[in-house]
Amino acid sequence: MDILDVDLGARAYPILIGPRLLAREGAAIAARIPARDLLIVSNTTVAALHAPALGAALPGRRIVEVILPDGEIHKTLANVARILDVLVANRFGRDACVVALGGGVVGDMAGFAAACYQRGIAIAQVPTTLLAQVDSSVGGKTGVNHPGGKNLIGAFHQPIAVIADTSTLDTLPDRELRAGLAEVVKYGLICDRAFFDWLEGNIDALLARDAAALAHAIRRSCELKAQIVARDEHERGERAWLNFGHTFGHAIESATGYASWLHGEAVGAGMLVAASMSRACGMLASADVVRIERLLKRAGLPLDTRAIKADAAHELMRLDKKVQAGRIRLVLLRQIGEACVTAEYPDDALAATLAGHFG
Amino acid sequence: MDILDVDLGARAYPILIGPRLLAREGAAIAARIPARDLLIVSNTTVAALHAPALGAALPGRRIVEVILPDGEIHKTLANVARILDVLVANRFGRDACVVALGGGVVGDMAGFAAACYQRGIAIAQVPTTLLAQVDSSVGGKTGVNHPGGKNLIGAFHQPIAVIADTSTLDTLPDRELRAGLAEVVKYGLICDRAFFDWLEGNIDALLARDAAALAHAIRRSCELKAQIVARDEHERGERAWLNFGHTFGHAIESATGYASWLHGEAVGAGMLVAASMSRACGMLASADVVRIERLLKRAGLPLDTRAIKADAAHELMRLDKKVQAGRIRLVLLRQIGEACVTAEYPDDALAATLAGHFG
Repeated sequence: MDILDVDLGARAYPILIGPRLLAREGAAIAARIPARDLLIVSNTTVAALHAPALGAALPGRRIVEVILPDGEIHKTLANVARILDVLVANRFGRDACVVALGGGVVGDMAGFAAACYQRGIAIAQVPTTLLAQVDSSVGGKTGVNHPGGKNLIGAFHQPIAVIADTSTLDTLPDRELRAGLAEVVKYGLICDRAFFDWLEGNIDALLARDAAALAHAIRRSCELKAQIVARDEHERGERAWLNFGHTFGHAIESATGYASWLHGEAVGAGMLVAASMSRACGMLASADVVRIERLLKRAGLPLDTRAIKADAAHELMRLDKKVQAGRIRLVLLRQIGEACVTAEYPDDALAATLAGHFG
Repeated sequence: MDILDVDLGARAYPILIGPRLLAREGAAIAARIPARDLLIVSNTTVAALHAPALGAALPGRRIVEVILPDGEIHKTLANVARILDVLVANRFGRDACVVALGGGVVGDMAGFAAACYQRGIAIAQVPTTLLAQVDSSVGGKTGVNHPGGKNLIGAFHQPIAVIADTSTLDTLPDRELRAGLAEVVKYGLICDRAFFDWLEGNIDALLARDAAALAHAIRRSCELKAQIVARDEHERGERAWLNFGHTFGHAIESATGYASWLHGEAVGAGMLVAASMSRACGMLASADVVRIERLLKRAGLPLDTRAIKADAAHELMRLDKKVQAGRIRLVLLRQIGEACVTAEYPDDALAATLAGHFG
């Protein structure tokens, strides 16, 4: 078992990473989740697979479960209200803890409910998808979608612990594994060129679920995210790099009703658009755009976004949280391994980039 | 105009207090609310009286209004969702500011919406009731009621400024003035015996809306609250004193469906119960309970809670946010001007106190 620390002073917390944590490391998990009253939030798919093992790792507690429907389309304020109703109905106090067992959707909703209940109770994240293990469970971003845009309602609320049991990925569908790899590739692109190189050499092993390769990818991703979050918890600066590909990706998800693209898939396609835009702005070399596209293709990620109209994508981007003073701020690449945030780009470069990728 | 500072480091903010601020101090207000895009949240009663003056104090801005129904019964997650819908529909960005114009209900909901929108945008409080000016607009507590209990859903989200225009009290109904005085009396009881003495000598002037007396009461209340909040923003300790009377008061409000008691009235009656409990625990002298009851009566506050069953009140108290490890923590008085928080009290003293005040 690896233990990483997210260094946030009074809100610091550990990330436990390794195989068979739920089955074998109950004592370590129980020590990090000390509350007597636990609300486990999960979804219909994951609860059946892993809730019994999680419960067994936390003996002697009062455990209540909320099982939500599976899928990004269900990441709504109404479902957060359901979680809150269960907390109230069971008279959970400020000393209770919400435990999110599932992927990013479950983690975001459970975290937001914990942030709001009695103005904030503890949340522990037990991510069971690659995407959640390398990204959404770490860093304290919580929230839900609004019909008008992605993650428009939410809170910063750091977990007390993240328990990333890599064995839970054994039952993860291939499509979700690939979607998670998009976020892994993101870390290489924004801040670690050597990691990107490593991914080019190991993408086939990752897709084949080679345990050592997956363990390295997850650990390195969490390390990089933990460092960025520790330096910029509330996204005043550098943390925005983590949104690389997300402004375009959110537009893809929103335009398609959160139904046909997985979040990681939309981010993968969005990163290719962002790389193209970086080249159009004269930052990124064409050869690097080719390398990025090749790796994303090898990861099995869908990159064809021509079914979405360019105008619609542009309009949806204007609702992105990174809009300031009416202008869309973009995360772009100067080179592989070096991101920047800018609102200073030629509008015609953006229009041409959108026209090149969207319909 | 008086300016007090709430000293919270990076989240410090000013409280502007004085007569005719909206009419005469537009420049000072505009300087503290720099955003271009403003969402004014108000209610049907207050908007008609004060929204035009607030708008005139903030020229050259893009202003959108949300007018909510008036009353504690409307302090719901559904109405916060309405505010969020308007923010999304108008494409407000992270640099926008919500401005709460009204009493505690408006301020709590607008503050919570600002806390959740895009994971937190600015909120400015323009309180127009005595209760909001001396209590709810200062300190960053936001939230809504749940059918299962008062303020169970919410966030800590400090305002960027509080604009307390005492002239807005000219149109405040007498009943709401008296309800606000309950919270003023609270400050004397929990931490300032000299202020309690002053209130005994000036309660008639306050009820007669003597401008100098009101100004002193508001300023002193804000000073005391700002000091307590600065020392304990997230209620790990001393800030809980501010809940004196509130555990009993919330039970009164909840038992009566938030319909027949104003919040301040319930707090007033709750403070008398808490004083009785303090005496039953051997802390507070009987003569002091008599003084407290006499001042609350002179303030015109309703104190008869016998229509509520003692068992129902006890059950509702168990849902209070101050419950820890299943035990209700109470704010009690050692003497007038000195509060304490304790879970170490005889259960039969609580039962006898509840039986003495409730039906």
